[in-house]
Amino acid sequence: MALLVIGSVAFDTVRTPYGSAREVLGGSATYCGVAASYFTPVRMIAVVGEDFGPEAMGPLRERGIDVSGIEVRRGGRTFRWSGEYSEDLNSRKTLNTELNVFQDFRPKIAPGDVGARFLFLGNIDPDLQQRALQQVKPGFVACDTMNFWIEGKNTSLKRLLAGVHGLVINDSEVRLLAGEINTVVAARRLLSLGLGFLVVKRGEYGAALFSGGHYFAVPAYPVERPVDPTGAGDSFAGGFMGHLARRGEVSGTALREAMIYGSVMASFCVEDFSLNHLRGLSMESIEGRAGELRDFLRVEGPANR
Amino acid sequence: MALLVIGSVAFDTVRTPYGSAREVLGGSATYCGVAASYFTPVRMIAVVGEDFGPEAMGPLRERGIDVSGIEVRRGGRTFRWSGEYSEDLNSRKTLNTELNVFQDFRPKIAPGDVGARFLFLGNIDPDLQQRALQQVKPGFVACDTMNFWIEGKNTSLKRLLAGVHGLVINDSEVRLLAGEINTVVAARRLLSLGLGFLVVKRGEYGAALFSGGHYFAVPAYPVERPVDPTGAGDSFAGGFMGHLARRGEVSGTALREAMIYGSVMASFCVEDFSLNHLRGLSMESIEGRAGELRDFLRVEGPANR
Repeated sequence: MALLVIGSVAFDTVRTPYGSAREVLGGSATYCGVAASYFTPVRMIAVVGEDFGPEAMGPLRERGIDVSGIEVRRGGRTFRWSGEYSEDLNSRKTLNTELNVFQDFRPKIAPGDVGARFLFLGNIDPDLQQRALQQVKPGFVACDTMNFWIEGKNTSLKRLLAGVHGLVINDSEVRLLAGEINTVVAARRLLSLGLGFLVVKRGEYGAALFSGGHYFAVPAYPVERPVDPTGAGDSFAGGFMGHLARRGEVSGTALREAMIYGSVMASFCVEDFSLNHLRGLSMESIEGRAGELRDFLRVEGPANR
Repeated sequence: MALLVIGSVAFDTVRTPYGSAREVLGGSATYCGVAASYFTPVRMIAVVGEDFGPEAMGPLRERGIDVSGIEVRRGGRTFRWSGEYSEDLNSRKTLNTELNVFQDFRPKIAPGDVGARFLFLGNIDPDLQQRALQQVKPGFVACDTMNFWIEGKNTSLKRLLAGVHGLVINDSEVRLLAGEINTVVAARRLLSLGLGFLVVKRGEYGAALFSGGHYFAVPAYPVERPVDPTGAGDSFAGGFMGHLARRGEVSGTALREAMIYGSVMASFCVEDFSLNHLRGLSMESIEGRAGELRDFLRVEGPANR
């Protein structure tokens, strides 16, 4: 089944200990959409400026993504972010943010989007996420958020969380949102807001899934040459949502499998700048890493495949 | 089969956000030995001072540990350590270290120790670890170490590693020892020194096992009320080695199971100060958490047990 992704499309300028990239394609919806596109048809709703030319749209079209929901704002300039990563890639400093057309982004929901079976609400103002949710009335919806909204729009965010099935966020965001330093207690507190499940992304340590009484942890795929972590969390969300949409169901097993595909897509993302690696994968390489991750979880040792 | 543990016995003074404890039983061999004692007969080789009375020895005897290898140095004072933990318990500051009798500890290997099937060399001077290893000539041996020896006795340590089966150390120590910031590359480099396997302890993120081409990751058991992380890594080593000794073999499956028991014992350790919780467990509670951890790893979802 198709996946609808609402979020940001950006031009990123990134410096890591392994090199740098200038004004390259990025944004939460971009990474999520491209990662998900290996599993299911994807449609993106976003906004870009007039500077977002056909070559920028290339990787999205190439992956068969429906880009008709990406509004090109006449005379506007695309959202820009630039940042720099620490030596071990575990922390980053934002050097500059230019919201540009993203500042007054109002997701335009088309009639065909109403009743979408699978929706992912990328990290935007929770009031806009809420409005999109009410318009789309999806079968299944998960969302992301960030510190800025947790601190600035806490009430809106909590209202949103009561109406979504799942939340996919970082370790530190879980703590901040729950106001609790222990992740386990924090997770339980967030689930009590009405969430069906919570995915906690832990960077190089993988991710954990909390849902009513259940817990599942997937390691990060062991990448030997990480180059740029930008978009890893969004790629995780893309692999995760993409697999659920492909399965067309959201059972406990499907969620656990989705965690594996999330981890796989994040691992490909970090192996190069921008979508350079993520955009040109084969299903064989994706399923290969998924199989390896399954083996890493098998107490009895690797399966003979 | 019995497990021989060589390492430190100490009195710890600890402050955490959840309380404090003064001059309580601690030390690497103590935590490791007590944790292992649930799985297999344990004999400890260590040194204490005259201030180490029968009440201090109590928890060890109570767990059926053979303490005849613990030398009580006449007129000496037991090793003391004190430290303070950060708000999230993820980092600690050493406030004071008094080596006392531990300063000139020379493990005394008894004739009955020679040819021990399972040996764990706690974190002591690698030259002493090497000497003990040569005297015991064990069937299977794993060791621990720390930054102090990695920096101060690197050559001795690398010689030791070529002669042991496994190394059980922290994340940051792996990076320091390998001189490589990427854990995956660092692990491969350490394995190439002649190690059979490497266990990387990651605190609240669990632990990873690297061995010739294989990888396995176990999450930390989700503890809601961690109180004091002191000894968690040593308790992990105890559960890990204890299970291997119980199985009496070191297959790939046994190593993976051992990772689970390591994680279980670490989780009990952190739930109270000193050995307060670790010393009074039932096998039922241990196997209960081990079963839960197996479920946390099962992609198909919890087994119906």
